[in-house]
Amino acid sequence: MTHAPAGIDRRACAALDAADPLASFRSRFDLPEGVVYLDGNSLGALPRDTPAFVQHVMREEWGVGLIRSWNDAGWFAKPTDLGDRLAPIIGAAPGETVIAESTSTSLFQAAAAAARLRPKRRVIVAERGNFPTDLYMLESVQELMGGGTALERRLIADDGPTLADVLDEDVAVVVLTHVDYRTGRMHDMAEVTRQVHEAGAVVVWDLCHSVGAVPVDLNAAGADLAVGCTYKYLNGGPGSPSFIWVAERHQAAVRPPLTGWHGHAKPFDFTVDYAPAPGITRFRIGTPQLLSAAGLEASLRMWAEVDMARIRKKSLALTDLFIDLVDTRLADRFGAEVVTPREHHRRGSQVSLRVDGGYPIMQALIERGVIGDFRAPDLIRFGFTPLYTSFTDVWDAVVRLEDILTTGVWREAHFERRGEVT
Amino acid sequence: MTHAPAGIDRRACAALDAADPLASFRSRFDLPEGVVYLDGNSLGALPRDTPAFVQHVMREEWGVGLIRSWNDAGWFAKPTDLGDRLAPIIGAAPGETVIAESTSTSLFQAAAAAARLRPKRRVIVAERGNFPTDLYMLESVQELMGGGTALERRLIADDGPTLADVLDEDVAVVVLTHVDYRTGRMHDMAEVTRQVHEAGAVVVWDLCHSVGAVPVDLNAAGADLAVGCTYKYLNGGPGSPSFIWVAERHQAAVRPPLTGWHGHAKPFDFTVDYAPAPGITRFRIGTPQLLSAAGLEASLRMWAEVDMARIRKKSLALTDLFIDLVDTRLADRFGAEVVTPREHHRRGSQVSLRVDGGYPIMQALIERGVIGDFRAPDLIRFGFTPLYTSFTDVWDAVVRLEDILTTGVWREAHFERRGEVT
Repeated sequence: MTHAPAGIDRRACAALDAADPLASFRSRFDLPEGVVYLDGNSLGALPRDTPAFVQHVMREEWGVGLIRSWNDAGWFAKPTDLGDRLAPIIGAAPGETVIAESTSTSLFQAAAAAARLRPKRRVIVAERGNFPTDLYMLESVQELMGGGTALERRLIADDGPTLADVLDEDVAVVVLTHVDYRTGRMHDMAEVTRQVHEAGAVVVWDLCHSVGAVPVDLNAAGADLAVGCTYKYLNGGPGSPSFIWVAERHQAAVRPPLTGWHGHAKPFDFTVDYAPAPGITRFRIGTPQLLSAAGLEASLRMWAEVDMARIRKKSLALTDLFIDLVDTRLADRFGAEVVTPREHHRRGSQVSLRVDGGYPIMQALIERGVIGDFRAPDLIRFGFTPLYTSFTDVWDAVVRLEDILTTGVWREAHFERRGEVT
Repeated sequence: MTHAPAGIDRRACAALDAADPLASFRSRFDLPEGVVYLDGNSLGALPRDTPAFVQHVMREEWGVGLIRSWNDAGWFAKPTDLGDRLAPIIGAAPGETVIAESTSTSLFQAAAAAARLRPKRRVIVAERGNFPTDLYMLESVQELMGGGTALERRLIADDGPTLADVLDEDVAVVVLTHVDYRTGRMHDMAEVTRQVHEAGAVVVWDLCHSVGAVPVDLNAAGADLAVGCTYKYLNGGPGSPSFIWVAERHQAAVRPPLTGWHGHAKPFDFTVDYAPAPGITRFRIGTPQLLSAAGLEASLRMWAEVDMARIRKKSLALTDLFIDLVDTRLADRFGAEVVTPREHHRRGSQVSLRVDGGYPIMQALIERGVIGDFRAPDLIRFGFTPLYTSFTDVWDAVVRLEDILTTGVWREAHFERRGEVT
């Protein structure tokens, strides 16, 4: 127990775990033995009840109910039903959220719809630090929504230009990620939304790294549209469906850009012309992938028991502890720099470190049972998911990282780059 | 056994089953006891091996492998790997097919890409009889791909106008459904493709009701692009992912309209600008829904054992038998009219009947364990899936239908319309 920060050792961490009001949730997940999993910000862990729930959907709803389950098992309404289950986690009213296809497709659907709310304006503002697919899908929005002339893109960044630098009367839509996927930096949603509205534009929030990680209140912030994914902190399963949120006041004003039959007013009249359904339903496109939706439903049933204020309190305690331990044990000796904001109100539920040799260091760490990830060019990333991450996990992760840096084992050739994934 | 057509009774059907080289596949499905399932053209039945396969993906790949499974379990390559598994069923070469999001979204991605192959032409031709979501998504293509002025739509139909009537030098794209979802009428893919090409246009084939139902050879037909769904005759599970096929000769020429990170040349470089991946991969959009993809994978593993020539032979025998029995027992007495073409080369793997009281008749039939479906305004539809439909199923379905029509039980009030799905 060398280099322990003042007052903290593994025993103290165990005491924090013993006093944790969320501790019982850890047993609701099937985590592999001996693994410290700090990558729930990329793919959440498997909830214990999920396999049986998905089995039920397969054997009973599909196998026995067959086509009848579209009515009898509520399949057709599943995207809006699950949207309403998700609503409390993001501060949405009932009827504002719908489970959709991939986050990328939803980003297009939402941002292109937003552009239609400001048809005379020609600029889309986004962040250089948006997850790249947001920027890529915005290229589609720029090309397809400009009426023959591509919309202009203006990129902002945490080191400038700022939002204030680029906002003017030409800006139609601002697409921002609430919590930055690399640094964990969190925007002040209410303040930024106010700023965007003041310029007459609408804001689309990407909640991928905040839903289930930090309290989100879209309606309190006066937000316009939002999208997010459910396979990170919500633990919906690999590639589980994304969601689209549209403030009730905007829903009737927008014809969605992608007009599929599940968003039709009367899908079973089989008419040849599209007519949008009332409400959030119009943002649906095609048939939902129902086994993946079942994985999400199993998890959302558990989330109904979760208090987001407790999630936030524990998240900050976990990330504070991690930052303290890195500062004390790794900063001076190994040059590990915490790039995540230290101010609570600017921090999501992850901590990222800038360190030379990030990729092989993370590979060595994974081999020793601590799973985080690497984000090019030089960040190693640790996600803290209060439902199943413990304070002793934090301790063990830092101690093992310290060991790898001390021994230099990460310099061995087999930890070199081979290709990595989200 | 009144009204039996010449030489056919239930015993003769049982003899046909005993001689059926595909009979053993029926035991590879978990069909509920006492049900004659003739709606596999809407939602295929549950393959016996699927639940265990999906469990494996949940417990081992997700639960234990966690984020590592993106590499170790081949998750990232899954859409193209499954596309290549599907390829032989549609006459595709390796590297031409990718598993995607909903069929609606794929129809947009394919048809909008096709429009980019003929940027100076202003017309999209479709069929009134396309499944409606195709027409709805084509409205999005018309609006978004016309460079500020909506593309013109021309609709053809089996009762005119014909394709020849509308094809001219203004036509960019023709979107046709290979097998009509209501009538089961099949196009001559090679001949129609030739006709479209002669006019200088490109064709997008919707294979939803033909993939796994009839032999399809896209490359032999010289087709351009195609989409299809996998939850009907392929038995991938409710809402299982659609596919996109793009002839190799077109792949490099098109920037996809929806530019997501899974279609990026270097997704893990996290650059701010989109650059399309080589080959079919560029048609990917976002993160695949992997539990639903697992359902499809389980089914495609079984399909590797299937001989499409046998499927076709049995499909025609089943539909011939059904048509014969309807003609003999139901046509004169009850006015039931077979609307599906009687010529083999124009018939898919379903038979539709026009009959007064279609909706309540089908509801009464479902209550008696024969599951088909109803398509507005007046068709009852029966899908024959050679992997699990038997000749005695056909016999039993017609006999029960005859009984319902004879007794008039379908006129009871509780069989009236309540809302039906897909």
